[in-house]
Amino acid sequence: MAQNKKMVEAITSRDEDFAKWYTDIVKKAELCDYSGVKGCMIFRPYGYAIWENIQADLDRRFKETGHENVYMPMLIPESLLQKEKDHVEGFAPEVAWVTQGGSEKLTERLCVRPTSEVLFCEHYKNVINSYRDLPKLYNQWCSVMRWEKTTRPFLRTSEFLWQEGHTMHETAEEAIEETLRMLKVYEDFYRETLAIPAVVGKKTRKETFAGAEATYTIEPMMHNGVALQGGTSHYFGDGFAKAFDIKFTGRDNTLQYPHQTSWGVSTRMIGAIIMVHGDDDGLVLPPKISPIQVAIIPVAQHKEGVLEKADELKKRLSKEFRVKLDDSENSPGWKFSQYEMKGVPVRVEIGPKDIEKNQCVIVRRDNREKQFVSLDNLEEAVRTALQEVHDAMYQKALDNMNEKTHVAVTFDEFVDTAKNKPGFIKAMWCGDVECEDKIKDVTGGVKSRCIPFEEEKLSDVCVCCGKPAKHQVFWGKQY
Amino acid sequence: MAQNKKMVEAITSRDEDFAKWYTDIVKKAELCDYSGVKGCMIFRPYGYAIWENIQADLDRRFKETGHENVYMPMLIPESLLQKEKDHVEGFAPEVAWVTQGGSEKLTERLCVRPTSEVLFCEHYKNVINSYRDLPKLYNQWCSVMRWEKTTRPFLRTSEFLWQEGHTMHETAEEAIEETLRMLKVYEDFYRETLAIPAVVGKKTRKETFAGAEATYTIEPMMHNGVALQGGTSHYFGDGFAKAFDIKFTGRDNTLQYPHQTSWGVSTRMIGAIIMVHGDDDGLVLPPKISPIQVAIIPVAQHKEGVLEKADELKKRLSKEFRVKLDDSENSPGWKFSQYEMKGVPVRVEIGPKDIEKNQCVIVRRDNREKQFVSLDNLEEAVRTALQEVHDAMYQKALDNMNEKTHVAVTFDEFVDTAKNKPGFIKAMWCGDVECEDKIKDVTGGVKSRCIPFEEEKLSDVCVCCGKPAKHQVFWGKQY
Repeated sequence: MAQNKKMVEAITSRDEDFAKWYTDIVKKAELCDYSGVKGCMIFRPYGYAIWENIQADLDRRFKETGHENVYMPMLIPESLLQKEKDHVEGFAPEVAWVTQGGSEKLTERLCVRPTSEVLFCEHYKNVINSYRDLPKLYNQWCSVMRWEKTTRPFLRTSEFLWQEGHTMHETAEEAIEETLRMLKVYEDFYRETLAIPAVVGKKTRKETFAGAEATYTIEPMMHNGVALQGGTSHYFGDGFAKAFDIKFTGRDNTLQYPHQTSWGVSTRMIGAIIMVHGDDDGLVLPPKISPIQVAIIPVAQHKEGVLEKADELKKRLSKEFRVKLDDSENSPGWKFSQYEMKGVPVRVEIGPKDIEKNQCVIVRRDNREKQFVSLDNLEEAVRTALQEVHDAMYQKALDNMNEKTHVAVTFDEFVDTAKNKPGFIKAMWCGDVECEDKIKDVTGGVKSRCIPFEEEKLSDVCVCCGKPAKHQVFWGKQY
Repeated sequence: MAQNKKMVEAITSRDEDFAKWYTDIVKKAELCDYSGVKGCMIFRPYGYAIWENIQADLDRRFKETGHENVYMPMLIPESLLQKEKDHVEGFAPEVAWVTQGGSEKLTERLCVRPTSEVLFCEHYKNVINSYRDLPKLYNQWCSVMRWEKTTRPFLRTSEFLWQEGHTMHETAEEAIEETLRMLKVYEDFYRETLAIPAVVGKKTRKETFAGAEATYTIEPMMHNGVALQGGTSHYFGDGFAKAFDIKFTGRDNTLQYPHQTSWGVSTRMIGAIIMVHGDDDGLVLPPKISPIQVAIIPVAQHKEGVLEKADELKKRLSKEFRVKLDDSENSPGWKFSQYEMKGVPVRVEIGPKDIEKNQCVIVRRDNREKQFVSLDNLEEAVRTALQEVHDAMYQKALDNMNEKTHVAVTFDEFVDTAKNKPGFIKAMWCGDVECEDKIKDVTGGVKSRCIPFEEEKLSDVCVCCGKPAKHQVFWGKQY
């Protein structure tokens, strides 16, 4: 029976067909299921548990930086969405509209929130009167909806889960500082918790969020060299505040407009985890967010004392780690494959011979390294192994990103690299949107990822038009 | 300046105008704000923090009883909603419909979920094949929408936050056991965490959830004697499984339908907390879910050493409790009122004279009792005070419920009690819906709350029609 379970059937090879490999993992690791509403997915327990761990870690970071959680309505009246002109132009084409409530046709359409800037502004107008009311540092965990034509689990779905921070500040300086602070929180989170390195920087005007003055982004690279916009942090200036007439009495007793930010990351990060770390045997989960950190597999479990000992190890390890003891009737080999598919970072094997020698076997998911460990030092050994797995995963991803980051000085080099070498291309840019458009057209989809904070000077002229260069840009295809 | 803050303005007296007292508290304790979408409210940080504490406590209880969290789409295709006839009849009149996605009119309307039974069923059909796949014990935290005509913050809003558990079982017995287990979890939570006593039992047929075979309910009584349906747990039998053609291969190798439950509580509980415990000075929060458990107020804070000492106490207490030190320029008197309004269970006052004597003052929110406490025993004293506040709040609420629970044997007694004595009425009932309807009409809204698990025999006949009685019922008006 057990051998027939689909869980451990081989998945498509990552190098053979990356897209199919991805959907195989999503399905066989039981992360999600498709639903009857096109583009909306179901988060199954294992997929949702990853999100819960992500939430807990990020929420702690948000609270440590002084933010409070709130909850805004999920519906936005059309007139409210229209208050900020650029914003509505950016979002109106991709929202779902509620036109009927109960048995009555609504006099005004309501859209299901695609993002909540306008709702926060409406509320901020009510609660900000004086500089003493600032800053307002709010965050919201919720689902949002953007009517997507082509969708892919976690990466691009009509409904997705995310957090959206929305803050208001007394001065532009403070708001810009906040924008960068939260980008840094994301960068730290990616590195420390997800074991994912990334390029960070500022978006070009063309790629800036609808209604924002500046958008900062974190861009991790997937194993196949394709970029993912992994999180954004926006500085709005006082544009929304003016559109919504939000004013406060300043320290000098004059009426002023507050300065605003917003920043968000979403369940798309689960897609990044799969595509940065996964391999041909399935998921490889970063220890910090893995729903199971240690899988204990008894060997020859019908022999006397094995299950008792396995249970004893579980009790010991559960004090410090998230542990699963699998004492089902499936074979040890089947269980090994199953927890590899599920990406569990550390496996502990214990059998009669191990018990005799007061030892167990510890196997790392990332490199399959086995070691025999004395049961006296079990906790210490698991703690070390988890840290080593995290560090090695980060280093491997960093090496991949570095290997797949190329420099192009001439346009021919650029086009050739875009065609033949997946990954980021570092190249100079004049600052004109025409060059961004041309590069995208000629290369079949390479876009500017960001202008890094520390730019390199690769040449004096734009890689596209040859005019004097203003910036060094990271370019790449994206999900 | 400080004296003008609205926070500490007197609120309407609870006994004078209960409804106005309620909305005053909601506003002045900064729990919520109204939004531009009729019937949808904004959870402000203080209100949302209460919900986060409720969630953390309940989520722990759900996981301890073996449940896993998932997330289903927020939209339901009309054809899916229609699969179970009673269910759609119950909900269709009160849902919001999405008819347009982006720029295209949808070929099928989608409703914003009012509850998610049908979505869970659609998914369960994909993942349940064998008795080995059972039970499925899933829960979801989300927002739902029911198009309400008249709304009141927390108690009845078009959108509200809740959890909905949805489980599938091999046998009817197991499903019924689960239904009652989760009702018990709610009852324990109300008592142990919210300090709220309640009547529990089974709903009459008329009050049973759309599509369910049986609905169990927890019914706390508000201070004014009005009931609140505080949570429900439903047993569905295999009705939905048949409608959705969900089958599994049983232990005897035959195809069978699984048996289903669902159960939920919502942000309405915050309304219950306000109306059970609040008083004329504002909120009184149960210590377990209060965002601030201890407010430290320095007295004569400009005197040397006071703020330093207050900060030292904060550091000590923060190791065990949620603490706020208010060192703002507002007067101590203003601060006392503010944290009373916010319902903070314990206040610690510390001034120069206290410091001299190595003591502080501890004041309980529920009864204003003051005591001087040696700083050597501070943690112990605060721990004891919080427990005493919880216990006293529960006892006070229980006394109120007992005082306002009346017995009626004749119809005249019933009508007279309903008119003159707010609260529950215990009375016998024949089991006919006609008597429920008549009682509701004659009394202007008294409905059956539930049939308790341990019925009393108050007489042999129905209080309404005089026919032989089948059950003892708790009756009452509700929010």
